[in-house]
This record gives sequence, structure tokens and C-alpha cells, in this order.
Amino acid sequence: MSAEVEEMLKRFSSVKNIIGILVVDNDGIVIKSTMDNSASIHYACHMQMLTEKCRQVIYDLDATNEFISIRMRTSYFEIMLMPHDNYFIVVLQNACD
Amino acid sequence: MSAEVEEMLKRFSSVKNIIGILVVDNDGIVIKSTMDNSASIHYACHMQMLTEKCRQVIYDLDATNEFISIRMRTSYFEIMLMPHDNYFIVVLQNACD
Repeated sequence: MSAEVEEMLKRFSSVKNIIGILVVDNDGIVIKSTMDNSASIHYACHMQMLTEKCRQVIYDLDATNEFISIRMRTSYFEIMLMPHDNYFIVVLQNACD
Repeated sequence: MSAEVEEMLKRFSSVKNIIGILVVDNDGIVIKSTMDNSASIHYACHMQMLTEKCRQVIYDLDATNEFISIRMRTSYFEIMLMPHDNYFIVVLQNACD
């Protein structure tokens, strides 16, 4: 998993307007982060809850369908949330451009 | 609100690959829908829960920030969720193209 995560972090780091990148395992433990420790823990916890809610909603609507990712717009930035088998990636990006 | 909703429905209807459009008030009551009754009620209920979760997560992370919209990718289609003051719009779109 480590090489795959490193590769993804490298890929996202080169994308314009990225504010932060976070890799979290399914227990909510931060594996990698470009944010400070407090922000990383806050985002990890909340994004894990959101991932679970999205999975549950999609499953309840159609048990054969599967949640892949979300992109959430907020007043300040966009949050992308991409779950994988054993971890999920959170990317914060400025919405401008 | 009605003219605004009609205008939005018209706008979304012309977008390519749209499977369904749903307008739901903040009590979870379906105002307008292009889907059948059962699907509309299911989506209204689940998307209302998801809207609340997104609002809560964004507020908890930063009380001055605000949730604007989400686009959720699933295996079968994409779901766009756009809350407004008194209602929210759900658009289901085939991911191809």
C-alpha cells in the first residue's frame, strides 16, 4: 500500500491549488498528511464519518451499487474524498480556477 | 420558489445523460420529481440525511464555512446534491461522457 499511497500523494501534490492531502486508514488513523497534526486528526475523524454515511446511503438505495468518491464544495474550498480498500484519501483544493 | 424551481428543472433537463431530477423541501417532502413515486421518496429521505451530515461535518470542521454542494460518484451513476434555503435539488446523471 505504501508505494501506491506515495505515488498518489505525488500525483495530487502537482495539482494546482491543493491546500492539503490526507491519507487515513479505515480505523481513522492518519497514515500521511500535508496538514498540521490537529487539522489532520479533525479531518480524518469527520471524513471517516462522511465516508461511512455515503456508503450506507448508496447501499440502502441499491445494494448492488457502490460508492466511489465525492467532491464537496464549501464556501472556502472543495473537498475530495476517495475511499480505497484499506484507506481513504482526502484532498482539499481551492475552488478558484 | 416555484418559478425558480421550474427554471432549474428546465435547465437540468437539457443536460446530457440526466437520469432523474428531484426537488425536496427541508421537511423531506418531494416538491417535484422526474422519477417514479417510490424512488423519489427513497432518494428524498436518504439525500436529506446526507445533506444534514455534510452540513454538520463542514460546520464542525469550521463554523464559519458553509456546505454548498456535493457530487458523488457511484458504480452506476453520479448524484449531485445542491441545497438551497428551503429545499434541495438532487440530480442523477450517467457518468459516461
